[in-house]
Amino acid sequence: MIRISDRVDNDTTIGDLRDAVQRFVAERDWGQFHNPKDLSISLCIEAAELLEEFQWLRPEEVEAASRNPAARAGVAGELADVLIYAFSLANALDLDVATAVQEKLAASGRKYPADRYQGRFRLDK
Amino acid sequence: MIRISDRVDNDTTIGDLRDAVQRFVAERDWGQFHNPKDLSISLCIEAAELLEEFQWLRPEEVEAASRNPAARAGVAGELADVLIYAFSLANALDLDVATAVQEKLAASGRKYPADRYQGRFRLDK
Amino acid sequence: MIRISDRVDNDTTIGDLRDAVQRFVAERDWGQFHNPKDLSISLCIEAAELLEEFQWLRPEEVEAASRNPAARAGVAGELADVLIYAFSLANALDLDVATAVQEKLAASGRKYPADRYQGRFRLDK
Amino acid sequence: MIRISDRVDNDTTIGDLRDAVQRFVAERDWGQFHNPKDLSISLCIEAAELLEEFQWLRPEEVEAASRNPAARAGVAGELADVLIYAFSLANALDLDVATAVQEKLAASGRKYPADRYQGRFRLDK
Repeated sequence: MIRISDRVDNDTTIGDLRDAVQRFVAERDWGQFHNPKDLSISLCIEAAELLEEFQWLRPEEVEAASRNPAARAGVAGELADVLIYAFSLANALDLDVATAVQEKLAASGRKYPADRYQGRFRLDK
Repeated sequence: MIRISDRVDNDTTIGDLRDAVQRFVAERDWGQFHNPKDLSISLCIEAAELLEEFQWLRPEEVEAASRNPAARAGVAGELADVLIYAFSLANALDLDVATAVQEKLAASGRKYPADRYQGRFRLDK
Repeated sequence: MIRISDRVDNDTTIGDLRDAVQRFVAERDWGQFHNPKDLSISLCIEAAELLEEFQWLRPEEVEAASRNPAARAGVAGELADVLIYAFSLANALDLDVATAVQEKLAASGRKYPADRYQGRFRLDK
Repeated sequence: MIRISDRVDNDTTIGDLRDAVQRFVAERDWGQFHNPKDLSISLCIEAAELLEEFQWLRPEEVEAASRNPAARAGVAGELADVLIYAFSLANALDLDVATAVQEKLAASGRKYPADRYQGRFRLDK
């Protein structure tokens, strides 16, 4: 099944988005502010703004928001802010994002074997 | 200039990483937990753990950590956790990440014109 | 009604706790690290650790945790960390906590008149 | 030395502030929303807004903000929001704040003996 909304993600590399963020920063000469501590602070602030989109919502209200175009646009905008700072941090430290994600998934796969953690994320539950 | 460390990012699409995350979740039947509110909570928690890598560090210590292999690996691991939840959220809501990031950069570009915000991010400073 | 568990809170001033935190910091000569930016970072990290106590919990699991002694102790410990940094920040900036809280409650009272916001925190819901 | 600004904190008990918060909530019938998970989410969001007061500030700018009346008022307002949710959580779970803080300070005192951690918070530094 081709998910229409994913078309752009399937044609865009991580490097493409990193370059777009890098250009935005360079055009404003903001690289001087982009040390990894301050970028992590900004990422944390944006993550809280993303969470704010769901503040106080009960499970059924979260469901409704997930189908509401205005709510979806709000979430997409805050998620974009999180990612822009994530890519800025990768740029500032010259870290390879794809490698980091694949290595973390492999490590998590060893920590949470699929057969033992089927349908649960804690063994004591 | 080709940055060696970016080789994988330049050959990996956003869709590739979203698919890798999706497979990890599906293999454990964890999709049942992946509502956008709980994913945003987890993203927020991971963002704080990323920030913890720089807790109490003075500017010169941040500089030193940026060149220290163990510190860089710690940051890469926490950044990966942030991104895994960001892609999980995009998967759960079927949002296109590349479009969201490009639209946000365009909006921020209108909000912060490069000529007026050259080297500064607040006009009153 | 006298709540047994509140006995100590009813006999402890904000100043008492601020002094206890101040002594702890002074005994270790940690005041040199206590600038308001780094204290706010630490408070943010501890707030995320508090939230982690409820990560992934469904409403009925939150209810169960609220009555579970081990879970309650975990929450109390993380809440204490948040408050220790909150009081550290008040000490570092010489802010009066009681005044700040009372003024904020008064301002919020004007923003959310009790009659219009009875049982709801958004007018559009 | 009597610190003028602490006068109110020295005459206000934790119980006094908890009661003020409780009244505010009860007057609006908001107790129905005050489960510990959603309160922890709100506390986390407010902690990030507090941190936002210092976003991008260099050490010398943090110093300047600490003496600036408008900046101090901004910080006091955000700190108040954090504390209002902290007291709301203590009310919702009937936790004794003073006991939790004193026990945590005692535990931290054992973890960080004053003689070994004099002027440093990590032994490997």
